[in-house]
Amino acid sequence: MKHYAPPLEKLIEQFERLPGVGHKSAQRLAFHVLSMNKEDAEEFANAILAAKTAIKTCSVCQNLTEGDKCPICSDPTRDPSTICVVTDPKDLIAIERTREYRGLYHVLHGVISPLSGVGPDDIKVRELLERAALDEVKEIILATNPDTEGETTAMYIARLLKPFGLKITRLAYGMPVGGHLEFSDQKTLSMAIEGRREIR
Amino acid sequence: MKHYAPPLEKLIEQFERLPGVGHKSAQRLAFHVLSMNKEDAEEFANAILAAKTAIKTCSVCQNLTEGDKCPICSDPTRDPSTICVVTDPKDLIAIERTREYRGLYHVLHGVISPLSGVGPDDIKVRELLERAALDEVKEIILATNPDTEGETTAMYIARLLKPFGLKITRLAYGMPVGGHLEFSDQKTLSMAIEGRREIR
Repeated sequence: MKHYAPPLEKLIEQFERLPGVGHKSAQRLAFHVLSMNKEDAEEFANAILAAKTAIKTCSVCQNLTEGDKCPICSDPTRDPSTICVVTDPKDLIAIERTREYRGLYHVLHGVISPLSGVGPDDIKVRELLERAALDEVKEIILATNPDTEGETTAMYIARLLKPFGLKITRLAYGMPVGGHLEFSDQKTLSMAIEGRREIR
Repeated sequence: MKHYAPPLEKLIEQFERLPGVGHKSAQRLAFHVLSMNKEDAEEFANAILAAKTAIKTCSVCQNLTEGDKCPICSDPTRDPSTICVVTDPKDLIAIERTREYRGLYHVLHGVISPLSGVGPDDIKVRELLERAALDEVKEIILATNPDTEGETTAMYIARLLKPFGLKITRLAYGMPVGGHLEFSDQKTLSMAIEGRREIR
């Protein structure tokens, strides 16, 4: 039994689809939208459309970007000999915040997770291998999360990369095992980058 | 220091403006939008615009509605001799859910709250007085929340309504004092409606 006017019900349903938003929260958010002035509501709706339309993945590192190449890949001061492989864009941001790392990145957009039906072909592994073949690349840091799926993914990629004869490293366990990069403090992450160890 | 591409930063900011959404949640929601397919994102944006454009307040009871008059005010089977005055549309829905009440409503869109700078002119009291003057109206139920502001608002309105010679009632304290209509269970609310008492 629907009680609110259909456009309001529909907005509540849309909010309910968002992760972590229950029915009560969805109602609260929808009423908030109604209480916004028209310009603010339009700005909100446009931000959704603009982000969805304008944001692409970088043709080099797969990071989210507006142009074809992301600002980091386009920056001539970054060191192209090192590629830091992360699970998703939030992890890249976490590492950037340490200001410790001056190389490039590669965003996998996921981890290998047989239980969730995510295989190597579902994440950006192939694109990484193409980059690993470039002459300028000397080291690849596998900065997936230090949990089971992150470790599995790192080990899998390390094996694929072996033939390239590169230095392959993993972030030092400066952060707690089972933790997530995204929520690490900057100091811990800095130490983890500094103490990174080679995978032999 | 902004790290994400501007359209993504902007979307995160928009989500952060919503009540109860912090920076981490806003990020999560924005990334969720990016992971939606294009049609779903458009549907979401359109739901915001549609709700904002299509939802008006009923010219009679001030409830949220699509047309000029809300479905309840337009329903000839509802009893126009009783008007139940509620704080906001969520409370109206809560009472509708009990299926106990067959009269009409009046939505105040707020309560008198001197501390928050909300006076009688900021809520729909004037519109209620206009309705109270109609011949068909016999009883007005003041169903504001049983907390300080709700009580104050009820007492204030009761005084204004006195000259009209109507029966003025308040919901019975079937629900816990300090509680909120919106979160009451249907049984308690039903009892509160049934045991409503006259304000003399």
